[in-house]
Parts: sequence; structure tokens; C-alpha cells
Amino acid sequence: MLRNNIFSCFVFYAVLLVLKMYVLAFITGQVRLRKKAFANPEDAMRHGGLQYHRLDPDVERCRRAHRNDMENVFPFLFLGAVYSMTGPSLAVARLHFAAFTACRLLHSVAYLAALPAPARSLAYVAAQVPCVSMALQILAAVAAYA
Amino acid sequence: MLRNNIFSCFVFYAVLLVLKMYVLAFITGQVRLRKKAFANPEDAMRHGGLQYHRLDPDVERCRRAHRNDMENVFPFLFLGAVYSMTGPSLAVARLHFAAFTACRLLHSVAYLAALPAPARSLAYVAAQVPCVSMALQILAAVAAYA
Amino acid sequence: MLRNNIFSCFVFYAVLLVLKMYVLAFITGQVRLRKKAFANPEDAMRHGGLQYHRLDPDVERCRRAHRNDMENVFPFLFLGAVYSMTGPSLAVARLHFAAFTACRLLHSVAYLAALPAPARSLAYVAAQVPCVSMALQILAAVAAYA
Repeated sequence: MLRNNIFSCFVFYAVLLVLKMYVLAFITGQVRLRKKAFANPEDAMRHGGLQYHRLDPDVERCRRAHRNDMENVFPFLFLGAVYSMTGPSLAVARLHFAAFTACRLLHSVAYLAALPAPARSLAYVAAQVPCVSMALQILAAVAAYA
Repeated sequence: MLRNNIFSCFVFYAVLLVLKMYVLAFITGQVRLRKKAFANPEDAMRHGGLQYHRLDPDVERCRRAHRNDMENVFPFLFLGAVYSMTGPSLAVARLHFAAFTACRLLHSVAYLAALPAPARSLAYVAAQVPCVSMALQILAAVAAYA
Repeated sequence: MLRNNIFSCFVFYAVLLVLKMYVLAFITGQVRLRKKAFANPEDAMRHGGLQYHRLDPDVERCRRAHRNDMENVFPFLFLGAVYSMTGPSLAVARLHFAAFTACRLLHSVAYLAALPAPARSLAYVAAQVPCVSMALQILAAVAAYA
């Protein structure tokens, strides 16, 4: 399948998005250490005492950004792979993949930097456009097999 | 792979489930706007003020439904794709895919409508049956390669 | 694809990880019943009354373990499948898959048993090593198609 140009193009952007999610997890951990706010008492014990087993708004912000990525990047990993097999043109397919990747990167930046609304929401909606486009094209390709 | 009837049948149901999850995200956003309950201060500021940066039971219900979908629909996207390659009969495979899809749709309805227990739990358990069935059939097919 | 030894090896470990996540969901439900702590009022009503619609630290611990699995096992399902297609040696590939699986199993045990820090964090970091390794090898294989 990696000899399929379109699938390989998809894989490139998909792996970037997975790495972006790993970075978000790393940032969450760093914010927990800096703000001394741990989700587990055993972690708080290691870093100064049970009083650091607490919530922190910056940590929660990181966690919301990560959860939103799970809600949106994971479906893209599926849709993009199947869409690659429906025979789109490479240019149109790359546009779908690159637009989604760019918008999700902007979404993470807007979330972590707490940019004024509706910056984050616009990035979210713009990222959904290529996903819904791919979903509908896939349905058109396989509807006969339902 | 889309010339494989079973895989294409799987893809049809899988894409419906992804779209169902997108609808759930959209409903969550609408409930946030209607109840004026925002997870981020910057969103609350845009919609009337920081007092709307607050939790709401209806919003939390939508989020639990969405999270439960992530816990269950995402594994299905993997199991269904691999199961399609193990050479099941089309009728049996379609039964797995359609039963899972129907049960997860019922699960979402039971969750959002807060139907009396154990409606939602029954839909959840019934949806797990085809997933565990596929997982075991896949393990039987690949156990020699462990 | 199941005639590809490396992909089949990946599928074996991947399905074990999905089943592990199902077990975690089952444990969460059992802890909810035992501690009488339900996320939904309709569940609490069925099990004794609205006073059991409440949070419980043991339930929250299970949910954090499950969420961490979503954040890490789901990307593995993607990375492992694509990495299998890049033509690694079977021995090296199996090492990636088995190491990740073992570390994630240890992670779940460390989480549920509340082992002293940094047991759980070490399991988490060790599991990331094969994932980042696969991600970089995939990028090297498809970079020409970006």
C-alpha cells in the first residue's frame, strides 16, 4: 500500500498529527510539574506532598486540547486511509490532508494560547470540512455494498 | 481493498458511525450555546461573560456519550477492518457490522434522552458482542504469527 | 494483508491491547457497582437512589487509566499497521510490538494498583519509545510523498 502515492501522502500527514498529539501529552506533563498539579496522589507524594493532588486550569486546558484531538484526529486516521483507496486525484487528496493538518495545528495553538474566540472554533470547523468531504466521498464509493 | 465486498461493507457502517460521532460533537456545541455553559473562559467571554464558564449537567451528559463512543467505536474501526481480511462470509460479517452500528445508535439515543436504566447499558453490552466475536476470530487467524 | 507475517504479528498484539481496554471498561463498571458511584442519575436510581450519583476516587482512577490507553493505544493501532508495510525485519518489528504491549500492560497494573511513582510514568515512557521509533521510520519511508 505504501507504493500507492496517495496513501503515502496521507500517511505523512497522519504521522505528523500523531506526533503533534504526543507533544501535547508531553506539554501536559510539563505543565503538571511546573504548576505542581497531579491527577494521582502517588504522583503528588513524589513531588512534594498530597496537597499537590489537585486540579489546575492550565492542566485542564491541555487535557481539553488533547481530548479534542482524540475526537477529531483519530477519525481522520481512518477516513484518510480509506479515502486514499477510493481513487481521488493526488492534488485533491493532498489538499484534504494538508488542510486538515494545518487546521488542527492551528487548533492546538489557539487552545494552548487561549486565543480570543472564535479562533479555536474556526480552526475546528475548518478541519471538519475535509473530514466530512472524505466521509461523503467514501460513502458514495461503497454505498452499493451496504 | 475496496474491491473486497466485505471490507466495503465494513467501511459503509464505519463511516456512518464516524458521522454519528460528528453529530454528537455538534449537539454538544449546541447544548453549550443553549445552556450558556462553556469549558473555556475565552468562549464564555464571547457569549456574555465569565459567569458562563461553568459546568452543566446536559453538556456533561453529551460529553460522556461522546467519550463512550471513543472507547468503543474507535476499536471497532480497527477490529472491523482486520476482521474483513480474515475471510468471513459476507452475511455473517454484515451481521456483525450492522448489529454494532444499530446498538451504538441506540446507545447514543439512550444516553442523550436519559432513558431509564438499564436501556443504555444493554445497548452497550449488545454492541460489545460483535466486537469480542471479531477480536476472537482475528486472534484465531493470526495466533500462529505471535 | 494477513498473509504478511509482520502485519499478522502486529495484529496479534493490537487485538490483545484492545481486549485489555475492554477489560478496563469492565473493571470500571464493577468498581462503580461496588462503590455505588454512578455518572448518570438514571443509573443511580436503579441502584438505590440519587445519592449514588456521585464521584468516587477509585472510579476516577479507572477512568484515567482508560483515557491514557485511548491516548496511546489508539495511535499504536495506526502506527503499527503502517510500520508493518515499511518492510522491517520480523524480529525488530516483533520487538516493537511486544515491548509496547508489555509496557502498556504494566502501565494499567501500575495505574489500578496505585504503585508508587514513578512506576506508572516509567511504563508510559518506555511504551512511547517503540511508538516514536515507528513514527520516525514511517516518516523516512514516505517523506518523498509529502
